[in-house]
Parts: sequence; C-alpha cells; structure tokens
Amino acid sequence: MLAWNTNCDLQETIPDMTEVQDPSSGDVTHDAFLGGRVYVYQPKKGRHRAGLDAVFLAAALPVETTGRIVDLGSGVGTAGFCAAARLPDISVTLVEIDEAVLSLAQKALQDPENTHFADRIDLLHADITAKGSLRHANGLLPTMADHAIMNPPYYEADRFRASPKSGRAGAHMLDERGLEPWVKTAADIVREGGSLTVIFRADGLHELLSVLQGRFGAIDVIPLRPRPDAPATRIVLRAIRASKAPLKLLPGFVLHESEGSDFTSQSKNIMRGGQGLGLTPR
Amino acid sequence: MLAWNTNCDLQETIPDMTEVQDPSSGDVTHDAFLGGRVYVYQPKKGRHRAGLDAVFLAAALPVETTGRIVDLGSGVGTAGFCAAARLPDISVTLVEIDEAVLSLAQKALQDPENTHFADRIDLLHADITAKGSLRHANGLLPTMADHAIMNPPYYEADRFRASPKSGRAGAHMLDERGLEPWVKTAADIVREGGSLTVIFRADGLHELLSVLQGRFGAIDVIPLRPRPDAPATRIVLRAIRASKAPLKLLPGFVLHESEGSDFTSQSKNIMRGGQGLGLTPR
Repeated sequence: MLAWNTNCDLQETIPDMTEVQDPSSGDVTHDAFLGGRVYVYQPKKGRHRAGLDAVFLAAALPVETTGRIVDLGSGVGTAGFCAAARLPDISVTLVEIDEAVLSLAQKALQDPENTHFADRIDLLHADITAKGSLRHANGLLPTMADHAIMNPPYYEADRFRASPKSGRAGAHMLDERGLEPWVKTAADIVREGGSLTVIFRADGLHELLSVLQGRFGAIDVIPLRPRPDAPATRIVLRAIRASKAPLKLLPGFVLHESEGSDFTSQSKNIMRGGQGLGLTPR
Repeated sequence: MLAWNTNCDLQETIPDMTEVQDPSSGDVTHDAFLGGRVYVYQPKKGRHRAGLDAVFLAAALPVETTGRIVDLGSGVGTAGFCAAARLPDISVTLVEIDEAVLSLAQKALQDPENTHFADRIDLLHADITAKGSLRHANGLLPTMADHAIMNPPYYEADRFRASPKSGRAGAHMLDERGLEPWVKTAADIVREGGSLTVIFRADGLHELLSVLQGRFGAIDVIPLRPRPDAPATRIVLRAIRASKAPLKLLPGFVLHESEGSDFTSQSKNIMRGGQGLGLTPR
C-alpha cells in the first residue's frame, strides 16, 4: 500500500529515473485508491508512480458527466480507473505510449475489486505527441471524446536532465515542444462543448494558459495547496472546447491541516471517499 | 465618506459612464483611506471612483520597498498616496492622461491630513499608451522606476460599449490594444530587478500573463475573493523585470466573512490599518 507515499505533500521532488526496470520482471506493487474501490499495479521503480495527482484529476469531473472520457497519457490507469469508479455513466479510453505500463492497466482490469467499472475501460497504444495523420491512424480520432483528462509530464527537458540510462523518462519529462502537442491533440479529439481537464505544476500556469489560447475557453483554475498558507504546488484546470466564456480562479483545496500531517477532511473525502471537486458543467 | 461604497464586494458592475461632469464644477467628494491617513478628492460622477482596488494595489508593495514608485494611470492618486503613506522610504510619481483628474491629486496634496507624505509625491501628465519616442519626450523615461504599480482600465473595448456621450471612458475602457501598451511601457520604465504590480479582473489572468511573457518573471499571483467559497473577482499580480524565476500562485485574501457583510479581520487590517499583503521582495 504505497499509494500515498509519492507526492504526498505535492512536493516538487525530482523523481529517480536512473533505475528503470521491466515491470514484467515482477517488481510491481498493488495499490488501493478511493478507499479500495480502485486497485492498480505499479512498477516499484523506474516509472512514474501515481498518487494524489491522478485522484484529484479524476475528481475534477462533475458528477453529471456522461459519455466517453479519453485519458491522454494514462500510465497504469489510476486517473481513468478513479473516474470510472466515481461516475457510472462514463466509458474511459486510456491512451499510453509505454506498452509495458499499458499491460499493467490490462492486468488490473482482471482484478475482482475492479469489476464494477472494468467493462467500461478500453486501452489504446498511441503516441499523443505524434503528428495528426499518424495519431489518426493510431486511433486518436477527431471529436472521439466527450471529455479528455491529462496528467502530462511535469518537467521540461531544458530545465532538468534525464538520466541517460533512462529509456522511459517520458512520464516525467516534456520534450522541447512542451505542452503544445498535448493540448493540440486534446483540441483535436474533444468535441465542441466537451472539456479538457489537466493537472499540472502550479508554476506552469502561464505555459498552460498560453497553449489553451484559441482552442479552449471557460477556464476554471483550481489551486491545490499543501497547507492553508502555502502557495499552490499543483493546479487542476478545466476548460471547454471552443468556448469564449471567461476564466474563473476558484478557491481550490488545502491538502493538510495547518499543523501536523493530517489531511483535511475535504481532501480525505476526495482521496478516500471518492468525492468530486465540486466543479459543475459549463 | 463614500470611499467604500464603490466596488465594496469587488463586484463586476459596469460603471455608469453616461454622465461625465467637469470636476472643476465642484461636485467632488473628499474621501478617507487607511483609517484617515490618506485623503483624496474624487469627482462624484462620470469618472472612475477609487476603492478597495487602489488600497489592495498599494498594500502589495513589501514593507522593505525603497526608491521611486511610478503609478501608471494614477487617477486622483489613491493607490500612490496609500503606498507613500505606508512606506516612508519611497517617492511616488503619479502618471495620468486626464488633466482634470490630476488637478484633484494636486489639490489633495495641499491637505493638512496628507502632509506626512505629500512632499514625496510628484505628478506627470502623460499618455501611457503613446509610442516610445512620445512617452520619453513626455518624461516617461527608460529605467526611471524602481517599481511600477498599475490599476489599468478593466473593460475591453470590444466587450462593452462606452456611451458616446462619454469623453473620458479611458479610466474604464481598454482600447483595442488591450493591456499590451500598458505592460510595454512598464517594461520600459522599470529597471532590471525592479517590479511591476497590477490589480486586474481575475478573468483577465491569461491576458495579463500573456503580455508579461518575455518581459517580467518571478510572477506572484494573489487572488482576491469576496467570500471564502467564491471565485476570485480580482487578482493582484507582482512580477520582476527580466527575472526567470517561476510563477507562484498564492492563497490570496478573502474580503468578507462567510455570513453577513462584515469584512474579515485580515481585510480590515489592510483597508483601515494600512497593513501590507505580506509579499516579500524576490
């Protein structure tokens, strides 16, 4: 049960990318989310480990959400699984470039604990950042999604250097094109009036707003703060395809109480109770 | 004492611009700020009336601030006066295009209540949005400012239509160039390492970040919310000239208690006690 060990304080720690292991070698953990309503398999080392970020991303979808959700860069499926577990009327397509990671999502779908949503999940092996013709050939089709969610790599290639040993730094590192190809693909696959929800580093707010420009509007920005008085370390941002409605900067969420390591009751309700962030459709 | 009647809830009300009066006609109010440490003269109608926005803008300057502060688009001087009253080691240049309004600032500097800061204020009649050579000829000189503050017009010309009767819609209406000429001028007059502090509509966050791009960094975003659970209606944003430091999204301030119309003690301390927003230099 290591699920909450990673990113527990939403700290900006640079992940260790020097030891990449083949998850088929068996060094895999089995982790519970949403108080046991969701289980995922994660490689112990060498790849991105899902945590709070994936849960908060899934919690941003309003309870009223229906239709097809595409999780762009799904990893082992944590966000997509949590979304499907919360929302009985959605189906979810996990899109991931790393086949070994996608095979762990496939394995988790056989778990008896995941039966209540497993038949509403499908998997797609594709490169989100590929050019349009290649993406379309790979099944990432225009307007295929009612809504997209994404937890893109947090670190820019020019700010942090990935270990040369790491063949799979992709889960942590954006290449030199940054978020542009991610949001371009999202704009292609989401139908008009559908939404894109992203969780990202708070200090990347301007980059994110800049690539959304002209593609998405009606932006809701939700700051996530580790403590009541601390700056946000993450933002959840939800935007509507082709909308011209104004941006809203919402109060956001505080993860921990002022003193000690206790989670706030609000964050416990989200992480363990499967509650949503309270966003409404617009 | 009408000072708090305007924008008290930071509501998005479209100001009445149909009746523009000449302030020399005498229909002017004398309003106290910071618990009586600052007095300004304001036209009763037809021009922008200063309120909370100007006070919060001035409060964003850290207590350690020294040097020359330039208030771009100062109106009758409320923000510049409040800054000078709070900070004994600064001098302030008010820059305003509207001569009638500037004459009210001049009049207020004769007030005995304002003696404690009046000799550290000077006035400059200039068009902030003019092209460089004209600005420079008018006295808006490169690197003249250690810090700039601005409360630019909130409404875009293409979103709201000013009354054709109004000759002075400038205080409320940005022209079709938006914030670009304002921030360009700020970038010209602020020395490297100096700051620009802006108060603006929260839903203009992306526009503001977009024009700051490449000119200012180390951006601190401070949301101002009318109630604890409400979206921000204003943002105060402070940025450092030519810095590459990352953006911070701060917790911000709540103006009113959850119930009723009482101000929070934190906002009272700022509005009546002259306390700062707690920003530190960076």
